[in-house]
Amino acid sequence: MDISGPKPELLGRFAAIVGENHVLIDPKDLAPHLIEGRGLYQGSSPMLLKPGSTREVSAILKLASETGTPVVPQTGNTGLVGGQTPRTGGSDLIVSLERMNRIRDIDPVANVLVADGGAILADVQKAAEAVDRLFPLSLGSEGSCRIGGNLSTNAGGTAVLAYGNMRQLCLGLEVVLPTGEIWDGLRRLKKDNTGYDLRDLFIGAEGTLGIITGAVLKLFPQPAGHQVALAGLNSPEDALTLFERASNLCGTSLTGFELMPRIGIEFTTRHIEGVRDPLAEPHPWYALIDISTSDSAETAETMVQSLLEQGFEAGLIRDAAIASSVAQQKALWHMRESLSDAQKPEGGSIKHDVSVPVSKIPAFMAEADRAVLAAIPGARICAFGHLGDGNIHYNISQPVGADKAAFIDRWREMNEIVHGIVLAAGGSISAEHGIGQLKRDELAHIRSPIEIDLMRRIKMAFDPAGIMNPGKVVAIP
Amino acid sequence: MDISGPKPELLGRFAAIVGENHVLIDPKDLAPHLIEGRGLYQGSSPMLLKPGSTREVSAILKLASETGTPVVPQTGNTGLVGGQTPRTGGSDLIVSLERMNRIRDIDPVANVLVADGGAILADVQKAAEAVDRLFPLSLGSEGSCRIGGNLSTNAGGTAVLAYGNMRQLCLGLEVVLPTGEIWDGLRRLKKDNTGYDLRDLFIGAEGTLGIITGAVLKLFPQPAGHQVALAGLNSPEDALTLFERASNLCGTSLTGFELMPRIGIEFTTRHIEGVRDPLAEPHPWYALIDISTSDSAETAETMVQSLLEQGFEAGLIRDAAIASSVAQQKALWHMRESLSDAQKPEGGSIKHDVSVPVSKIPAFMAEADRAVLAAIPGARICAFGHLGDGNIHYNISQPVGADKAAFIDRWREMNEIVHGIVLAAGGSISAEHGIGQLKRDELAHIRSPIEIDLMRRIKMAFDPAGIMNPGKVVAIP
Repeated sequence: MDISGPKPELLGRFAAIVGENHVLIDPKDLAPHLIEGRGLYQGSSPMLLKPGSTREVSAILKLASETGTPVVPQTGNTGLVGGQTPRTGGSDLIVSLERMNRIRDIDPVANVLVADGGAILADVQKAAEAVDRLFPLSLGSEGSCRIGGNLSTNAGGTAVLAYGNMRQLCLGLEVVLPTGEIWDGLRRLKKDNTGYDLRDLFIGAEGTLGIITGAVLKLFPQPAGHQVALAGLNSPEDALTLFERASNLCGTSLTGFELMPRIGIEFTTRHIEGVRDPLAEPHPWYALIDISTSDSAETAETMVQSLLEQGFEAGLIRDAAIASSVAQQKALWHMRESLSDAQKPEGGSIKHDVSVPVSKIPAFMAEADRAVLAAIPGARICAFGHLGDGNIHYNISQPVGADKAAFIDRWREMNEIVHGIVLAAGGSISAEHGIGQLKRDELAHIRSPIEIDLMRRIKMAFDPAGIMNPGKVVAIP
Repeated sequence: MDISGPKPELLGRFAAIVGENHVLIDPKDLAPHLIEGRGLYQGSSPMLLKPGSTREVSAILKLASETGTPVVPQTGNTGLVGGQTPRTGGSDLIVSLERMNRIRDIDPVANVLVADGGAILADVQKAAEAVDRLFPLSLGSEGSCRIGGNLSTNAGGTAVLAYGNMRQLCLGLEVVLPTGEIWDGLRRLKKDNTGYDLRDLFIGAEGTLGIITGAVLKLFPQPAGHQVALAGLNSPEDALTLFERASNLCGTSLTGFELMPRIGIEFTTRHIEGVRDPLAEPHPWYALIDISTSDSAETAETMVQSLLEQGFEAGLIRDAAIASSVAQQKALWHMRESLSDAQKPEGGSIKHDVSVPVSKIPAFMAEADRAVLAAIPGARICAFGHLGDGNIHYNISQPVGADKAAFIDRWREMNEIVHGIVLAAGGSISAEHGIGQLKRDELAHIRSPIEIDLMRRIKMAFDPAGIMNPGKVVAIP
């Protein structure tokens, strides 16, 4: 990569596209955009551009392709794999969509919402709620992450079980290609078999094939009934059995089934304000169960009660609490969503975002625990997540009193151990966070040469000048 | 295209890959493979190959790429756009997957089934049923269509409303690339964000990017309750209102909502053995309503009764019948699925497989009816289909006593009229059947140059020798 970077004259041409008021060049202003949440990557960039329209994004990418200037798109900067961070020691220009944050249209009859790529997820949720509809994507970072990033990473979160990933929640896209050309694929159709599926190629491409500037999103009816319960359990095996019963009983009304370990409850009650353990005694494991029904509130009540009864009778549940108010429901979910943050005051944390076939979760966790503890005695494993999706955030907090830096230095070693077990079970090393910089080389190592080659061919076909978020997902030789 | 075709020596090399017993060269044997169901396309081919394994498919495509021999994949030969038909006057080799028809694996706990690309859809459904699971894809041709073709066309059918298209029913693929390389993407994961979405690129590519030789399919619990009802209605407007009520009442338990016109009921009762009109009086329109519940049989009963009550009270339903046995349920669905066949004895039929946003269906149908009847007075419009998906099979039967050939000659003219109205409503000219040969040039005409160019770039990146089902979906200059 050319570390000398673009000449001042060229930077001036980029700045002129968006206007001086919408450019950051001061290192102090740029700093927050050069680092991602975990501090794993520290990038460098001479300039951040804030286009105000799809046309301006187009002009930026056209100039970038013509001049061979690398560009990294950024929305909420909440990604966890360094996909949105400019390269270290490089001179990638940052294109931020933060000004393009409008809800363009909302149609509750057709159940669609059209948003800018820079619209904040929580704003989309609120706009849907205002017309008595639900946009189900739900993440810990929903107050700051943005739709373009959610799409580019095919975001998951806690409602995937019933509603699917971001891929399943999107009907159409508007994308600016690396050449500056605009693809208007803002379709609102449930069924459309007209040629190659470009939409799903851009979704999950982490900004390496173009910049998503607009999207048609699916809305759903607000559920008539909603129940949230917390159950104390003995083991992940029991959690899996309970999940299977819940699936059979509730079908698609089972809108969440999250697994949490005791240590996670301890971390959150210790470090997160307002979190308290709703059960009288401690339990080794917990399931957070979320049920939403379309026909009536009573159906949800009946379902949650039947499920807990079945669980007690079968000896699967040690104790349980049903949230009796919306505030209590939110408190249970807040506990779950604070698990990552609650690990921070406990020192270093080595993280894995993995999936395996659902039925293999208990065996995977047992094997990974053994291997991790053999390598780092005293490591505190805080493995939690979307059991119903087969997706576990297998996080390892440092031993009490250990040196944080020395612990974090073992990141790759732990990855190799955990990912090795995941791959042997037919699993994925990135269930929902993506590849970015963090897992690019590992991906090339674990996937067949033909798979990586196909990705390279696509990348080169879409971005012949190689300017679009280079160095992420797949390396171009 | 080189109409001289491959030399005998080269044909011998292809035949040697599969063995002489698995080759067709006699024109009589080849004939059924050279024509598609509607007789719109009559192709030509010197040879059909029936590989018995993925390795043999790989060897065929490797030799095809090396020698520049065009190849067309074929499974059940039930496609409706000529995608599976060799080119007219050409010498494409046909690769049939009919011998690769195994269910490779089935795991009811994990809810997955792994099938060969040549497995017949009905066999997959039966295998799922045998372990108390549901594979929901359901089509009129399910007794002969095959999984590879279902995937290559992203098949839809009558259960899309609740379960989605084939794209939503597939977790992983095995694909032989045009170069003969094998992509093993047979993953069984619900969540896997590891690079570009190759799977969804092959799904719906109509065999132009490779041959799908295996797939991991999603299974679902068998519903606990199932109800089917037929309601007589005044208009498509009332059908839409009833659909919205049904969606709100049933949520994802609404597993089918099909619209049928009176003329369709007349055609089926006249021409299809065993079909009778279950309602005492004729009605202008009909809705076939299918409800499946996960928790209990009673829920489905309550739902269907509540829905019909609501419909009567609101003046939306003129009369209705609930199927009181599985046999009656099947009879109602048989009527719906016979609509296409029932048109054949009525003479020529010009067909459209279109979608518009659901809320625009009544307006689209009214406008299309006016325009079609102005062009061909006496034309009998038999527009039916998946109202809940916005997908209407807008079929036009010839006027009584008209000349069939003269009527069919107006196919393109009718297409232009109907598709023009569809496109003005933001709709699709191919909701579920695909592009194939039938709509290739029209697609290039109605879509932006950049969209067609992106498809071309993908095609050339995957199939540099241009041997893979050439002439379909997108033309390569």
